[in-house]
Amino acid sequence: MNNVNDKVEGASRFWDKDYVLGIDIGGTNTEFAVVNRRGDIVKCGSIPTCGHKDFHDYASKLKTAVDDCVAKAGVAGHVRGIGVGAPCANQYSGCIEAATDLPWPSPIPLAAVFEQMFSLPVAITNDANAAAAGEMRYGQARELKNFIMVTLGTGVGGGIVCDGHLLSGSQGFAGEIGHVVVKEDSDRLCGCGRYGCLETYCSAKGVMRTARKMLAESDEPSALRDVAPDELTPKVICECANKGDALAKRVFDFTGRVLGEACANFAAITDPDAFMLFGGVSKAGDLIALPMREALEANALHLYRNRIEILFSSLNDAEAALLGASAMAWDIE
Amino acid sequence: MNNVNDKVEGASRFWDKDYVLGIDIGGTNTEFAVVNRRGDIVKCGSIPTCGHKDFHDYASKLKTAVDDCVAKAGVAGHVRGIGVGAPCANQYSGCIEAATDLPWPSPIPLAAVFEQMFSLPVAITNDANAAAAGEMRYGQARELKNFIMVTLGTGVGGGIVCDGHLLSGSQGFAGEIGHVVVKEDSDRLCGCGRYGCLETYCSAKGVMRTARKMLAESDEPSALRDVAPDELTPKVICECANKGDALAKRVFDFTGRVLGEACANFAAITDPDAFMLFGGVSKAGDLIALPMREALEANALHLYRNRIEILFSSLNDAEAALLGASAMAWDIE
Repeated sequence: MNNVNDKVEGASRFWDKDYVLGIDIGGTNTEFAVVNRRGDIVKCGSIPTCGHKDFHDYASKLKTAVDDCVAKAGVAGHVRGIGVGAPCANQYSGCIEAATDLPWPSPIPLAAVFEQMFSLPVAITNDANAAAAGEMRYGQARELKNFIMVTLGTGVGGGIVCDGHLLSGSQGFAGEIGHVVVKEDSDRLCGCGRYGCLETYCSAKGVMRTARKMLAESDEPSALRDVAPDELTPKVICECANKGDALAKRVFDFTGRVLGEACANFAAITDPDAFMLFGGVSKAGDLIALPMREALEANALHLYRNRIEILFSSLNDAEAALLGASAMAWDIE
Repeated sequence: MNNVNDKVEGASRFWDKDYVLGIDIGGTNTEFAVVNRRGDIVKCGSIPTCGHKDFHDYASKLKTAVDDCVAKAGVAGHVRGIGVGAPCANQYSGCIEAATDLPWPSPIPLAAVFEQMFSLPVAITNDANAAAAGEMRYGQARELKNFIMVTLGTGVGGGIVCDGHLLSGSQGFAGEIGHVVVKEDSDRLCGCGRYGCLETYCSAKGVMRTARKMLAESDEPSALRDVAPDELTPKVICECANKGDALAKRVFDFTGRVLGEACANFAAITDPDAFMLFGGVSKAGDLIALPMREALEANALHLYRNRIEILFSSLNDAEAALLGASAMAWDIE
């Protein structure tokens, strides 16, 4: 009889707590939200990440703000857990490790501090894995058991879902596709200290590098020549390309081709059904996806040809990081 | 009460059947064995793969031989299931697809035919995945939740274990690391029709290619010059290297370096604790493992440095394919 009671209690506990908290820690701001099962943000808020005395001061201010948010959402006592997305977050140790963007000394024992403070289970992960988790739970990847999330932003990140499972690896560092070396003897130095990483070609900075190089290597007229070198962002290049600027178009041709060649190799490793593009550079849309598809098909082993989709993340940009972080919280055991 | 009875029956059924069958289908012979939980081969046998009227004729002769083997082992009625390793085996469809080494037209509905014939559940997989499964169940990888099996034989194959799970991917073609393109603008044509695949450098044929190239490109004296070009096998090159032949040693230096550079990239994808080498070329031992380690450390992202082991498969060569195939049978649900 005890068993039966336990089960009923367990079930009711489960149904009562149909909300999670997502927290996205960025270099500038920390955003948080109460999220329901469908992935709707019920209530959200933010505090600055910087300007606190130390990490514990930051954490306690965050606690006050989050509690207020939960109360205003009217779901106090109905929150199952907290998912946190942060740069260099290690899901196993629960720590933020060596994050150069954050104002506190590493490692930061984030999960332990938050668990104690909120009396709730906490899952932490890095940004790209959070994006993949968000896509799997709330986005168009709900039906996909095998896909690779490719985040093309300040850096290039990856979240690899294989056989329905988001890969973690030994230390939680699976999916670092931005640091796969894609060009031998490349002159592109990466932030990681090596040369020729995918990130040096397909991140926002990578695209800017390509543009500057193409401008320097020819006298071809281009609207990009009127733009200051450090304002030559993917957005600006994209606008020029969409107005018909041939050189600007070739910047994305090259970027997409490098990405497609790399993805042809990734396909041989986890046999995905789709690559899902996310982040600022992916806003170039077909400018990057078409050459990427061409290079993917031209370079993939026959087993993978003509069956891998290239998709764009369906999650709202502004909400994706928060939703992704929150998605982790549903699976805490 | 019915539930309880079912459970007891289920348990007794489970404990009664403490053997599995492993079947390894090669181009020349088909080997089979009765295997216990510890990975001991209790009884084994083989029949020729070729020389039968058709696939069904082959299958029925195999059935007779296997039944005889099971009877002699004294375990009739105590076999849980059958694991089959075969080239180009697709675990999802249960078919052998486009296997150029086998004498029957593809696809061959192997799992369906065997299941009906033996009245036992059947799991099929390709050779590299079988090797990884064998290592996980019976070998030194029992403690490893994250490793990549690298089979260096006629071809180069991979079996990727991540988070304790052998990756399959969308169509069962995860882990085809031999067909990751590792050199741009390579002149090495691969059997798959593309250029520069890892297999063109690190398979037995790849090593032979490297040897012939190095011999052609210099006048350096070498014992390898006394060997006919098609007898320049990894085994012969290894023997010469071990006798101090500098050129022979450089053949493995180069092979190991290419492998290490490739593995540095693989590390960023699934974050493994070890690469486990298997197959003929791996018999070169430290001749290949030392330059591989050097290249792995020199090329891996800092997150993966100084912590990934390079191991040699602990499974007996002659038995590995059979044991690997049998290992799949324990997990059939």
